[in-house]
Amino acid sequence: MGRVIADQTITADGYSAGLNQTEEQPFGEDGGDGWGDRLHAWMFDNPEENRAEIAQLHSAKAVIMGRNMFGPVRGDWDRPWNGWWGDNPPFHSSVFVLTHHPRDPQPMEGGTTYYFVTDGIESALAQAREAAGDGDVSIHGGASTINQYLAAGLIDELRLHIVPYTIGAGVRIFDGVPPLNLEQVASRAASAVTHVTYRVLS
Amino acid sequence: MGRVIADQTITADGYSAGLNQTEEQPFGEDGGDGWGDRLHAWMFDNPEENRAEIAQLHSAKAVIMGRNMFGPVRGDWDRPWNGWWGDNPPFHSSVFVLTHHPRDPQPMEGGTTYYFVTDGIESALAQAREAAGDGDVSIHGGASTINQYLAAGLIDELRLHIVPYTIGAGVRIFDGVPPLNLEQVASRAASAVTHVTYRVLS
Repeated sequence: MGRVIADQTITADGYSAGLNQTEEQPFGEDGGDGWGDRLHAWMFDNPEENRAEIAQLHSAKAVIMGRNMFGPVRGDWDRPWNGWWGDNPPFHSSVFVLTHHPRDPQPMEGGTTYYFVTDGIESALAQAREAAGDGDVSIHGGASTINQYLAAGLIDELRLHIVPYTIGAGVRIFDGVPPLNLEQVASRAASAVTHVTYRVLS
Repeated sequence: MGRVIADQTITADGYSAGLNQTEEQPFGEDGGDGWGDRLHAWMFDNPEENRAEIAQLHSAKAVIMGRNMFGPVRGDWDRPWNGWWGDNPPFHSSVFVLTHHPRDPQPMEGGTTYYFVTDGIESALAQAREAAGDGDVSIHGGASTINQYLAAGLIDELRLHIVPYTIGAGVRIFDGVPPLNLEQVASRAASAVTHVTYRVLS
């Protein structure tokens, strides 16, 4: 059976998104300084330098994400929304979206299909494991979804990418999660990001 | 003029101390698992591997610390207390302790003298700069003191040592500090800690 991996880019103060997400500002209000774009700049500005971490990000055979990561639509699916990633999303696998509002599966180009799971995180994980076979499952975020899986003891490995600024408010990794023992299994500095991988021991 | 440096060991979730500090548990309640000792284990268990960071920690020519870092005594200085570090503290310099309660300077062995500053963080910094001459001033902690200096825009460089566990509650670095732009000037992985140095840009 594959591992359950969570992968998240966070600010130096632990946030993976600010407050008040909208379609225009998917990472929340940024006060006009575009910090949401800066969060993932390490991938786009320096792809060669961060090749290993980017490859890991896309190595999972199934993906789970929260409703907020999937999109800004709240409540019923009352307008068309197929994720932030266009017609050919980078997942190329089954993506299980946690939501309280039922919706039929949405096939996309390139092998991605979005499934909408309304009966909780454990059900989503069981479905993702089934889809992944022997491969890994990625809890792709956001931080509040990762925190739910951490609190439930369901994550084997946590990969953090720490970028050099703080935002002071928003959705924070580990927030509300009981104390965890971790093992630092890898840590690597790139020019504008520090990558740290933890095994979750308990 | 020297730089103003803050240096702090934090958990993966950003805490440098738990809640309810006492003389028996200087890093706060640990639920019996001794996490306070684990926080600084990287210095004591692997001094060779972390030689550079330990040397930096002791390179400042004057030190500022908060009342809680100095000791568990609250309110008036109504019982003898000369810090956690014995008769010959590792500072070998002037140490300015932030407090609301006046007390005469306390000379120790080895060149350390504790001065008690009752008129605020800027006064403490002015006195520490005077004492340091051309050398650096270290804001030694705890996190709530560092956060006050960060919020006031008075720190040039922040050195974090991130250790692999979380505690979920306590005193957290960056808590309540407005958003900061940082530059990652150094980052290095040791076997059970990741060292990251940031220059504070704004």
